[in-house]
Amino acid sequence: MSQLNPALASQVVNAIRAVTNSEASIAVALHEPSFRGNEWVYLKACLDSTFVSSVGKFVDQFEVDLAHFTGAKHVVAVVNGTSALHIALQLVGVISGDEVLIPALTFVATANAVSYCNAIPHFIDSEPTTLGIDALKLRDYLSSHTRQETGRCINCETGRVIRAIVPMHTFGHPVDLEALLSIAHDFNIALVEDAAESLGSYYQGRHTGTFGKLGVLSFNGNKIVTTGGGGAILTDDSQLAKRAKHLTTTAKITHAWEFCHDEVGYNYRLPNLNAALGCAQLEQLPGMLAAKRGLYEKYQKEFLSIPGVSLFQESLNCHSNYWLQTLILDPSSVVARNAILSATNEAGLMTRPAWTLINELVPYKSNPHMDLTGAQLLSRSIINIPSSSNLMLERS
Amino acid sequence: MSQLNPALASQVVNAIRAVTNSEASIAVALHEPSFRGNEWVYLKACLDSTFVSSVGKFVDQFEVDLAHFTGAKHVVAVVNGTSALHIALQLVGVISGDEVLIPALTFVATANAVSYCNAIPHFIDSEPTTLGIDALKLRDYLSSHTRQETGRCINCETGRVIRAIVPMHTFGHPVDLEALLSIAHDFNIALVEDAAESLGSYYQGRHTGTFGKLGVLSFNGNKIVTTGGGGAILTDDSQLAKRAKHLTTTAKITHAWEFCHDEVGYNYRLPNLNAALGCAQLEQLPGMLAAKRGLYEKYQKEFLSIPGVSLFQESLNCHSNYWLQTLILDPSSVVARNAILSATNEAGLMTRPAWTLINELVPYKSNPHMDLTGAQLLSRSIINIPSSSNLMLERS
Repeated sequence: MSQLNPALASQVVNAIRAVTNSEASIAVALHEPSFRGNEWVYLKACLDSTFVSSVGKFVDQFEVDLAHFTGAKHVVAVVNGTSALHIALQLVGVISGDEVLIPALTFVATANAVSYCNAIPHFIDSEPTTLGIDALKLRDYLSSHTRQETGRCINCETGRVIRAIVPMHTFGHPVDLEALLSIAHDFNIALVEDAAESLGSYYQGRHTGTFGKLGVLSFNGNKIVTTGGGGAILTDDSQLAKRAKHLTTTAKITHAWEFCHDEVGYNYRLPNLNAALGCAQLEQLPGMLAAKRGLYEKYQKEFLSIPGVSLFQESLNCHSNYWLQTLILDPSSVVARNAILSATNEAGLMTRPAWTLINELVPYKSNPHMDLTGAQLLSRSIINIPSSSNLMLERS
Repeated sequence: MSQLNPALASQVVNAIRAVTNSEASIAVALHEPSFRGNEWVYLKACLDSTFVSSVGKFVDQFEVDLAHFTGAKHVVAVVNGTSALHIALQLVGVISGDEVLIPALTFVATANAVSYCNAIPHFIDSEPTTLGIDALKLRDYLSSHTRQETGRCINCETGRVIRAIVPMHTFGHPVDLEALLSIAHDFNIALVEDAAESLGSYYQGRHTGTFGKLGVLSFNGNKIVTTGGGGAILTDDSQLAKRAKHLTTTAKITHAWEFCHDEVGYNYRLPNLNAALGCAQLEQLPGMLAAKRGLYEKYQKEFLSIPGVSLFQESLNCHSNYWLQTLILDPSSVVARNAILSATNEAGLMTRPAWTLINELVPYKSNPHMDLTGAQLLSRSIINIPSSSNLMLERS
C-alpha cells in the first residue's frame, strides 16, 4: 500500500486537473458561486427601492419562485438553513428533553438545530448507496430499542420520546425517502427533511424537501445557488406555513401600530437584499444543474480508469443536483485518504473529506447512538473534489 | 378633555407636516434608510469578488470600521442584533435557570435573547429622564429582594441567580450608565448593553455599547444605518471577542480540511454582501447624525408651542443619535394618545406608540418583575414621529 498511495494521489491530482483545465498556478475552489444573470440588476433595484430589510417584494418573489421550482405549496424564506431547521423542528412538536434521530454523517448544523430546541440528537447510521440514513438498519434498531406509548415512540433505554427524524440528502444525493417515510409512519416519528444541500434533486420525480411534514433548504455561499446567507422552510401544510412565518418574524401580531407578540419568536426573516440575489440565482439554477451534471460526466470518464477510487453516482429513481462531486475510496485505498487530500490541496485543487462524525465531536460525545459502522467507513472513504458550475460554464 | 383631544391631534399632524414639508398626498415613513454614498459601489465590488457569504473583506472592514467609530477594541459582526445579544449573554455566563434583569419597556428581542439561553427575563422599571432603567429604584429593589451568596446575586423569592442586567438605550437615548455600572458592581451582576438603537450615541463622551462587558448593535432596516439585517458584538476583552467569533461561526476549529466543532455553535455570521452595504452606510453615519439632530431642532421649534406634549430631549452629559424622535404626552394628554396615532397615520404621517410592556405579553406574563409604574406611564405617554435622516438631507 505504501507504494501505491503516492501513485493514487497523483492520479487523482491529474484527473482533477484534466477535468478542470487548470494550470498549476491557478487555484481551483471546492465550490464557488456563479453570478451570470440578473444578480446585479436585482440588487440595484432592491437598493433603489430602499427596501433592503425584512420586508420587500424580492422576499415575496423568492418564496413564490421556490414554491414553483420545488413544488412545495408554501415556502418561508429565512436567514439560513440552520434557523430553518430549528423552526421546522419546533413546528413538528420537538420540545425540551425529546430525542431527534439524525445521521451521524452530516454537517454539525443538523445537530445544533436539535440542541436549540433543548432536544437530544440521537445518531443513526448511513449506507453507501445514498450516503444517507440506512433505513433497513434503522428499522431493526427502532424495533428492538423503542416501544410505543400512547402514540409516541419511546427510547427504551433513556425513556425519552423520539419525536422526529431528520434525513439529510448528502452532497445533494436523495436518501431512500420511501423507506424512511414508512419507518416514520410505523413508529410515530415526524419526518423533517434536511434538504440544505439538495436544491434541484429529485426522488422518484418529486423534489427533495417536499416529502416530510416540513423540509429545509440552504443558500449559504457554498451551495448550488446562494443568497449570501439564507434558507427556506418548505411545507404543504398551510397552518404550519403560517406558524413558520409567525415564529420567524418575532411572533408579532399584525396591527397598524401596536407591538404585540404572542409567543417567544425569532428574528429569522431573510433580508430583501439577500432575497434579491436569490431571485436572480434561481433563474440561473437550470443552467447550473446542467453544468454540474456535465461536470459529473467529465469526472466519471477520468476516474473510471483509476483503480481504488470511484466517483459517487446518483441512486436508482433519484435525480441528483450533484452539488459536491464525491470520490469514494475503496476499503483498500482508505489509508491513502490524507495523502490524496494533501496532494490535491497542495496542488491548488481544493478537496475535503467528509465531516467528522457528529457523535465524535466534544459536545455530542455522550449522546445516544446506534451502531455506526457504515457512517464510520463512509467518513474515512469520502473525498469531495472541485464542483463549481463555473468549471463547465464558459467564463465571462 | 374630550374637546381638547381632536384639537391636539390636528396640532400634532400640522406640526409634523410643517417639519417634513410633506404634502397631504405623500406618505412619510417613520424611518426609512438612506443610500447616498458608496452603497452601490461596494455591493457591486462584493458581487464581482464572488465572496458574498460568510467570509470576505467587507466583513473584516465593517468590523474594523465599527471598532474605529465606537472605540470598542473588538467587534464581531453577526446576522442581527438579537443574535448578538444571545451570544453576549452566553459569554457573560448566563445559563439555564438564571434570571436576567431587563427593562419592561423595550423591544421584545431583548427578552427573547434571554429566553434563548433558557434564562428568565426579570422586568425592571424605567424613568422619564432617559426612558431607560430607573437606577435609583432598581438599587432599592435589589437591596430588599436579593441576597449575596458566594459572589452571586440571588433572588430571595425565586432562589435563582440574577446573572446579568441588560440596559437598553431607548430610541437612541443613553441610559444612566454610571449608576447602573455601580449597581452591577455592588450586586455582582454582569452588565451587557443593548445598544441596538444607539449607534452614534454617547454617554459622558464615550460611545454607548462600550461600557458593559459586552455591548450589542443592530443594523436592521429601521436603524440609523442598515445592512439589510445585521448586528454586532462589542467588547474590549480579547478573550470574549475570540469566543464570540468562535460561537457565531459554528464553533469550528481551524484546519485545512477537517470539520471539527468543539461546542454547540451558531450560524450567526454576517454575510459579506450585507457587510458591504454596512461599510458604505458607516461612511454616511456622521451626515445622518447631523441630519437627525437638525430634525430634532426643527421639531422642537414646532412642538414648543403645543401644550400637552413635549419633544424628548437628550439628558445631561449624553449625546444622542436621536434615532427615533419621541413625543411625550403630559399625564393629562395621555388619554389623547390613540386619537393622535389615528390622526397622524390617517394623514399618511407614520407614527407609533411605545412597545407593549413585555411583562404584558403572553409568553412573559408570569415572569418576575418589580413595580413598573414608571414604565407603565411611559408606555402610555410615548409617540414616535417620522425620523428619517432623509427628511433633512436634500433628496437626490
